[in-house]
Amino acid sequence: MLRTHTNGELRLQDTGKEVTLCGWAQTIRNKGAVIWIDLRDRWGLTQLIFEEGITSPELLAAAAEVGREWVLQATGQVVERYNKNPHMPTGDVEVRVTELTVLNRAKTPPFQIEDETDGGEELRAKYRYLDLRRTPVRNNLVLRHKLAQETRRYLDGEQFLEVETPVLIKSTPEGARDFVVPSRMNPGEFYALPQSPQTFKQLLMVSGFERYFQIVKCFRDEDLRADRQPEFTQIDCEMAFVTQEDVLRTFEGLIRHLFKTVKGIDIGEVPRMTYDEAMRRYGSDKPDIRFGMEFTELNDVAQNKGFQVFDQSELVVGIAAPGCAEWTRKQLDALTDFVKRPQIGMKGLVWVRYNADGSLKSSVDKFYSEEDLKAWAQKMGAQPGDLLLVLSGDADKTRKALSELRLHLGGELGLRKNDEFKPLWVLDFPLLEWDEETGRYHAMHHPFTSPKPEDMDKLESDPGSIRANAYDLAMNGVEIGGGSIRIHDRATQARMFKLLGFSEEEARKQFGFLMEAFEYGAPPHGGIAFGFDRLCSLMGGQQSIRDFIAFPKNNSGRDVMIDTPSTISEEQLRELELAVKRSN
Amino acid sequence: MLRTHTNGELRLQDTGKEVTLCGWAQTIRNKGAVIWIDLRDRWGLTQLIFEEGITSPELLAAAAEVGREWVLQATGQVVERYNKNPHMPTGDVEVRVTELTVLNRAKTPPFQIEDETDGGEELRAKYRYLDLRRTPVRNNLVLRHKLAQETRRYLDGEQFLEVETPVLIKSTPEGARDFVVPSRMNPGEFYALPQSPQTFKQLLMVSGFERYFQIVKCFRDEDLRADRQPEFTQIDCEMAFVTQEDVLRTFEGLIRHLFKTVKGIDIGEVPRMTYDEAMRRYGSDKPDIRFGMEFTELNDVAQNKGFQVFDQSELVVGIAAPGCAEWTRKQLDALTDFVKRPQIGMKGLVWVRYNADGSLKSSVDKFYSEEDLKAWAQKMGAQPGDLLLVLSGDADKTRKALSELRLHLGGELGLRKNDEFKPLWVLDFPLLEWDEETGRYHAMHHPFTSPKPEDMDKLESDPGSIRANAYDLAMNGVEIGGGSIRIHDRATQARMFKLLGFSEEEARKQFGFLMEAFEYGAPPHGGIAFGFDRLCSLMGGQQSIRDFIAFPKNNSGRDVMIDTPSTISEEQLRELELAVKRSN
Repeated sequence: MLRTHTNGELRLQDTGKEVTLCGWAQTIRNKGAVIWIDLRDRWGLTQLIFEEGITSPELLAAAAEVGREWVLQATGQVVERYNKNPHMPTGDVEVRVTELTVLNRAKTPPFQIEDETDGGEELRAKYRYLDLRRTPVRNNLVLRHKLAQETRRYLDGEQFLEVETPVLIKSTPEGARDFVVPSRMNPGEFYALPQSPQTFKQLLMVSGFERYFQIVKCFRDEDLRADRQPEFTQIDCEMAFVTQEDVLRTFEGLIRHLFKTVKGIDIGEVPRMTYDEAMRRYGSDKPDIRFGMEFTELNDVAQNKGFQVFDQSELVVGIAAPGCAEWTRKQLDALTDFVKRPQIGMKGLVWVRYNADGSLKSSVDKFYSEEDLKAWAQKMGAQPGDLLLVLSGDADKTRKALSELRLHLGGELGLRKNDEFKPLWVLDFPLLEWDEETGRYHAMHHPFTSPKPEDMDKLESDPGSIRANAYDLAMNGVEIGGGSIRIHDRATQARMFKLLGFSEEEARKQFGFLMEAFEYGAPPHGGIAFGFDRLCSLMGGQQSIRDFIAFPKNNSGRDVMIDTPSTISEEQLRELELAVKRSN
Repeated sequence: MLRTHTNGELRLQDTGKEVTLCGWAQTIRNKGAVIWIDLRDRWGLTQLIFEEGITSPELLAAAAEVGREWVLQATGQVVERYNKNPHMPTGDVEVRVTELTVLNRAKTPPFQIEDETDGGEELRAKYRYLDLRRTPVRNNLVLRHKLAQETRRYLDGEQFLEVETPVLIKSTPEGARDFVVPSRMNPGEFYALPQSPQTFKQLLMVSGFERYFQIVKCFRDEDLRADRQPEFTQIDCEMAFVTQEDVLRTFEGLIRHLFKTVKGIDIGEVPRMTYDEAMRRYGSDKPDIRFGMEFTELNDVAQNKGFQVFDQSELVVGIAAPGCAEWTRKQLDALTDFVKRPQIGMKGLVWVRYNADGSLKSSVDKFYSEEDLKAWAQKMGAQPGDLLLVLSGDADKTRKALSELRLHLGGELGLRKNDEFKPLWVLDFPLLEWDEETGRYHAMHHPFTSPKPEDMDKLESDPGSIRANAYDLAMNGVEIGGGSIRIHDRATQARMFKLLGFSEEEARKQFGFLMEAFEYGAPPHGGIAFGFDRLCSLMGGQQSIRDFIAFPKNNSGRDVMIDTPSTISEEQLRELELAVKRSN
């Protein structure tokens, strides 16, 4: 090695040792007679010192030359520091350099390589390799590394086998758009990149692998909304001969293990809630249960008092924001504006101040007496000092809107703490959702999810009401994993495809191999997949998955550092027997 | 769980317990009054018994229905077996079934699900999910799983960070052909799938990650020679602030760890040999050192004796096959035919029988006296009883041919044992190789490999003679890994690209981001990549990598199970702004 020690390990007891260190010049303080250089590597910082009268003039001159981010190898003696730095693990010592080799020079970086940088997003993307030098960014990827290793350790211990499934697979029109890969050896034909290894992991269950997992790249050619990536990573798992309960317990164990080993946090038992309950209590299938403000339905106390808006609504529903009764009119108007935004689409917001003195004042005093309002407050379990916020309208839409408002308020009130983690199982998802656009049902999870046995008889008569053996793991208002018990017999799978509007021919062409496999002895099986990028960002206490990916793409699917996608040569196109047909 | 025990764990001390087992009906013996079913799962086999007079008539009838590969759940009591089977871990007991649930029926599989199957290669490929049920095939993938986990455990312990690099990258004409992926969001532009994460891992070194690894899928659109796959897996590693010696020691440690933990074998120190030495002694840059038969150059004793074929040859070189002096004329003719095959291309083979009585007899007795031949034998260190085999011609070609002959003979003589493992470091590879076809130099490893500092002055004057800081790990005649110390300064990298025939414009367009990165403080670094599929097959004592991949593709790059590649819809092509242009 070019070094004897890292820059994170020297301590007072090392004084007197001759050491060789390597790294980057983080900061340089040149006082003429003394030069200090903080040398950085992955493990920390160590201060180098060059001093007139002790250091040779040549060496002092060489040190004076050094610029920020130069790569150095320095040999010298560890000495106790005069001015100790208690904020630096190596802050008790410095290295009095006797030999300095410049391993590489560096141009001045386009932005500061510091915890807080002055570089804008675009500049940091173009020089991602420099952004990755910053400690917080590197720490994100160290966290990711640890989570991946501990995931494998846990699953290996639970007798799961990691099996690599292919990346060059078959295009299927179901779900999101596939990325495709033209085949040169089979011109005119294409592979597709997997959106998930779903069918392969089910085949592995048919093969008797019983417990499979993989940390695996998946691909979706979607229009990139904020914080989506065309390639993303899943922890993908499947088990045979299990019930839903077995899957929940196994993967609750995984999450518990990750929090314990990587964050030192005991998350305890993961609570459970049905989809219906989650929608009723929080208006969301991934409720953030770090804070309360649960929904209260007010139809019986708020309707038939002459307020037409409420009277004509399917649902009147409210939340109580603790301690917000004294919010200003301006603040309340801002909340009204929030729910009126097009992406939320409410027409208005009713508020009730439940004052500290027990009096009540609302935006609908014309229609409701103080006694009426008191009934609302009572039903909501509100306390004096709370602010009641009420929305009304179509049930689904109103719940979603109130959920947004609840999350917004939770944020404003500091109730959504980055270092608090509240996972929650959401169970009994609907099997299907109606798609207005195409006028048919879509699988809420995917077409391989099994209906609950007790709902099977409604498969043709009332498909919309069927519940699935499907479950999500939500945490802090984000879905981090989802899965289901699968269909494992051909007949049910065929009924399912039919229900989803596949012709027999389409079903056979796309999933014939799976349906055939089901005829050769498929065991009952089920599984789950976690969004690994999302899990990392959440456990890192951050919002953006991009900060937890070494080389992410931007919102146009571009990597601006390497400049891709890009054109390819005519020769390459000819070999693939393809032509680019620009539609101008 | 649907079971209380696996089929691999019941023993004599479990007798009396009520258990529930799940699995597949492996074999069914129906003697009318007694029915035995061997129930299989991932962990083993357990015998179920149904017996007239003890088992209820309904249950006996149900058991009689069961067919091969049906999926069953059976509850019953563990009893001691009358006829114990010492070859089966659970062979002391059987389960007297009291409850039987058919979890799924199965059609008769198209081939036997046994260790030795009657299914042909194509049939097994089409029903890969059934082939994967066979124990030897599953064991290959269990070995692969263990090797992957232990690789990670070792590298994690050595402070390597696993970092995922992108799969959607940029096409570069260097090296093998890229698979490309059209971008819908950027029509007319393409991503490429990585042939290796080479540039990204070097950027991570510039970023200060210091120790990186990844077990990662790579892609090459090559014409598939036997046992190549369009997608394959690498253990990809890189280290900063290291010398070649550090890399060799670290990864010798990895290989030692894998053999120790997974195979229980101590492989000892890995010997080292330069490329030149390997070529001279074995005619190969990946010599199989499980056996001797090293090369002896015979120019000085075999030339100038009137045998024109030898006299006009650049090299006369031989091996001594131990104990083969008495091979028949027919056997010797077969060896001659072997070296005359077009892919080897020798004109003939000279043989010398060094008989047990010390006499010598050769195919060139016309030109050489027994004394001459004795001098050959002496030089070769041959013993009476050996067969000397001599080839001559152009040095490179002759060495390669003799290497093939040596490996062939080693195989014939049983010297290449599947359960013996002899790794070898091959060092000091040439930097460049001359390509007759294009009339220019190619990088032997890749364009990022650093020349040896002492050879740098020949970079323009005598490029062919430059040695690189490049190394391979060979084992049993197969290259399992290769790497190098990299160039880490822009100027040298630019000289290298120039030497390889890149214009400045091309170099900038393709690798501009890397050369620019080198200007911002790149540390000295180097690394290695192992062919993981190959490593698995070798450690599994087998030849074919396909047997160690869950869902491999055939020689035409097709997955016949899922039937891919395949055509995509007009709609998909339109969205990508592409047209298929069949050249008929």
